[in-house]
Amino acid sequence: MADDPGRTKILLDESRIPRRWYNVLADLPAPPPPPLHPGTREPVGPDDLAPLFPMDFIEQEVSAERYLEIPEEVREVYRLWQPTPLIRARRLERALGTPARIYFKYEGVSPVGSHKPNTAVPQAFYNARQGVRRLTTETGAGQWGSALAFACSVYGLECEVWMVRASYDQKPYRRLMMRTYGARVHASPSPVTTAGAKILADDPDSPGSLGIAISEAVEVAGGADDTRYALGSVLNHVLTHQTVIGEEALEQLASVGETPDLIVGCTGGGSNFAGLSFPFLREKLAGRMSPVIRAVEPAACPSFTRGRYAYDFGDAAGFTPLLKMHTLGHDFVPDPIHAGGLRYHGMAPLLSHMYELGLFEAVAKPQRECFEAGVLFARTEGIVPAPEPTHALAGAIEEARRCAETGEPKVILTALCGHGHFDMAAYDRYLSGEMEDFDLPQERIERSLGRLP
Amino acid sequence: MADDPGRTKILLDESRIPRRWYNVLADLPAPPPPPLHPGTREPVGPDDLAPLFPMDFIEQEVSAERYLEIPEEVREVYRLWQPTPLIRARRLERALGTPARIYFKYEGVSPVGSHKPNTAVPQAFYNARQGVRRLTTETGAGQWGSALAFACSVYGLECEVWMVRASYDQKPYRRLMMRTYGARVHASPSPVTTAGAKILADDPDSPGSLGIAISEAVEVAGGADDTRYALGSVLNHVLTHQTVIGEEALEQLASVGETPDLIVGCTGGGSNFAGLSFPFLREKLAGRMSPVIRAVEPAACPSFTRGRYAYDFGDAAGFTPLLKMHTLGHDFVPDPIHAGGLRYHGMAPLLSHMYELGLFEAVAKPQRECFEAGVLFARTEGIVPAPEPTHALAGAIEEARRCAETGEPKVILTALCGHGHFDMAAYDRYLSGEMEDFDLPQERIERSLGRLP
Repeated sequence: MADDPGRTKILLDESRIPRRWYNVLADLPAPPPPPLHPGTREPVGPDDLAPLFPMDFIEQEVSAERYLEIPEEVREVYRLWQPTPLIRARRLERALGTPARIYFKYEGVSPVGSHKPNTAVPQAFYNARQGVRRLTTETGAGQWGSALAFACSVYGLECEVWMVRASYDQKPYRRLMMRTYGARVHASPSPVTTAGAKILADDPDSPGSLGIAISEAVEVAGGADDTRYALGSVLNHVLTHQTVIGEEALEQLASVGETPDLIVGCTGGGSNFAGLSFPFLREKLAGRMSPVIRAVEPAACPSFTRGRYAYDFGDAAGFTPLLKMHTLGHDFVPDPIHAGGLRYHGMAPLLSHMYELGLFEAVAKPQRECFEAGVLFARTEGIVPAPEPTHALAGAIEEARRCAETGEPKVILTALCGHGHFDMAAYDRYLSGEMEDFDLPQERIERSLGRLP
Repeated sequence: MADDPGRTKILLDESRIPRRWYNVLADLPAPPPPPLHPGTREPVGPDDLAPLFPMDFIEQEVSAERYLEIPEEVREVYRLWQPTPLIRARRLERALGTPARIYFKYEGVSPVGSHKPNTAVPQAFYNARQGVRRLTTETGAGQWGSALAFACSVYGLECEVWMVRASYDQKPYRRLMMRTYGARVHASPSPVTTAGAKILADDPDSPGSLGIAISEAVEVAGGADDTRYALGSVLNHVLTHQTVIGEEALEQLASVGETPDLIVGCTGGGSNFAGLSFPFLREKLAGRMSPVIRAVEPAACPSFTRGRYAYDFGDAAGFTPLLKMHTLGHDFVPDPIHAGGLRYHGMAPLLSHMYELGLFEAVAKPQRECFEAGVLFARTEGIVPAPEPTHALAGAIEEARRCAETGEPKVILTALCGHGHFDMAAYDRYLSGEMEDFDLPQERIERSLGRLP
């Protein structure tokens, strides 16, 4: 090992935390189709969204500005963990015998162990500034819920979280973490909302889904003046907040003279992938580099690769505006894979639009291949990845193995968006040979797509 | 918040990872009393230790050199997480209304989420270089066991861990993490060793203790030529390896022009406290600064404050040499507090000697006060601390509150030696009002002290 004296971990001082979020909307050849009101099928206006979101986000959602200023009060909290390290996976490269150079941007150093606080903090800040008293939200694996609970504790907001039942049962520690930050957590579907009660009446054993949990959180926020709703992915402003990841990675790679040949991230709602790739896409569109950009989604919830690009609801119950996106149908309930954060029926409308424009590729991977990648990564790089980024790692490893055959010394950049310290039960299942790869028959997708609005 | 523009997180580039460990033995006015052979009561020689440890450590254990070179191969692995950040706890300061400035050295960014890899990596490296095939060890909360499992996976060694049953049951995720790194984990007391079987015969429901687990790991290492034993605390060389923490903190504080008035850490076996404080003690002995140095131990296992300074076994069964240390008696079984890593009957002999020399203070704290500190810290600084460093935080907060009364703007340095992502069940008990403070009657201590060898 001592024969390889180059840098392993590329850090930036806190003065290098980006001062602006990058808004990719400004650089697209065409804007994405607007959200529609489900009744009138007319584009929704700011007034339709005001009961749910503060005006800052409604403006950010449609802004044509290339850069949005990050408030000093937000950067002050970002300093706790940002800039996050960019790490070269030298031991993984050696284990693969690849000439590729693999870099991963590691978000697990944040207080909650994932990239989610990048948007939770500004969301809590803007809401607190507007006088909101309580935020509601949904969470899958619990990464988003923990992040919002943390951010609310910083700004003195109440936080109420609907957590997908499959994860609520599998991952009690994330739930307890939210509680430690002072949040209230419900298993979703829950009896405390009309939407939840209705689903429980049909199926008392429902494992839940992100779509259902969103319905519940939106219902409660819509019914109280002092309460707003916060979303951890999917919407433009959320993706924009995450661009700090890519901006930092861009500076970090440049500092060691590297230009990426491949950028590969995991997609559920799409926020981590967007955060990593948008700043590089800006450079690509400007002709300054030409990386291939690739999304990896779970085979059990393949919205890009097997969904339809169509208007659909963002939630299961049909409370949200209609969003044009790659969808498996708003009432599609994915099998209970361990990557709970990727179990969403749709894809961020902005990413869906960009995918249609051909700005990046997408592949789907079954969870066993992903956990195999996760274990190899843990045993070489030491960090046990969350199930979500094992999809990104599986994509990076696939490419690095290809390079081992072709001899190409490609530079691969990926995002390790969280550690798996809350996900050890999933690793146990994998190591015990008990992890299943779910079969997803085409009829099942067609059935839910047949119920598109 | 924006009115406080100073630095929050002080990072160092990986080129600043220390090149040498600091050996405090070189600067003490008198050497600590030597370990004794339990039969002859003569000082043990290198040959007595060779079946358990590689010669590098036997030499480091008694070295009079002030600095020990860190092998390049070890620094190469350290780069994954070192230098760790030093963070100013501005939000905690504000919550306490204190003029004190609180800095914490955060080791939770390591792959396993604690400071333990600082010694696990060199231990695995030296053993691997000497041709050892397998390492055995004990673990309390699982932090040390995870660290050694990680280090063994890096150097291709087998790893076998005896985990204190109380933690094995309370913290399945740490056990699964060790398994993910490829280690084999036993609940201790276990039926696979003579020492464990004997204790199980007397008490089938024994919650175990670090002393018992050490007996088991030592027994297995002593019985196989290709196997050595690794210890996560207590011994001189382990404490020395941890001095990277203090060396980095010294440089980080200096870079912002600060000199500590108080250094406060938690003590179980003593490695984190030693690692943080020794380099500052060097500066103090040289007259370059004059911080108060304070150890905080759990009231349920108070070796400094209520133990006896005497020769005792390091393990429960009496397999180890006799060590002169502050001890509660080698068969003292502490109540099952959640800070499993602090449930050790003795204290590092080096620290015990230094305590007798008056080089630092010690206080004991009950676990509810510590968890109260942990929750306040989580809700202000965002990081949920492991139960062990909540003791250090409780000590720091106590001093900061005192400063709020006196108006003294003291600089307080503490060590957050690990995150609590594996310890959420303990927080749940605390928040539910179900956490107990154990009563430790003097007779119970006297009883086990009556059985000193």
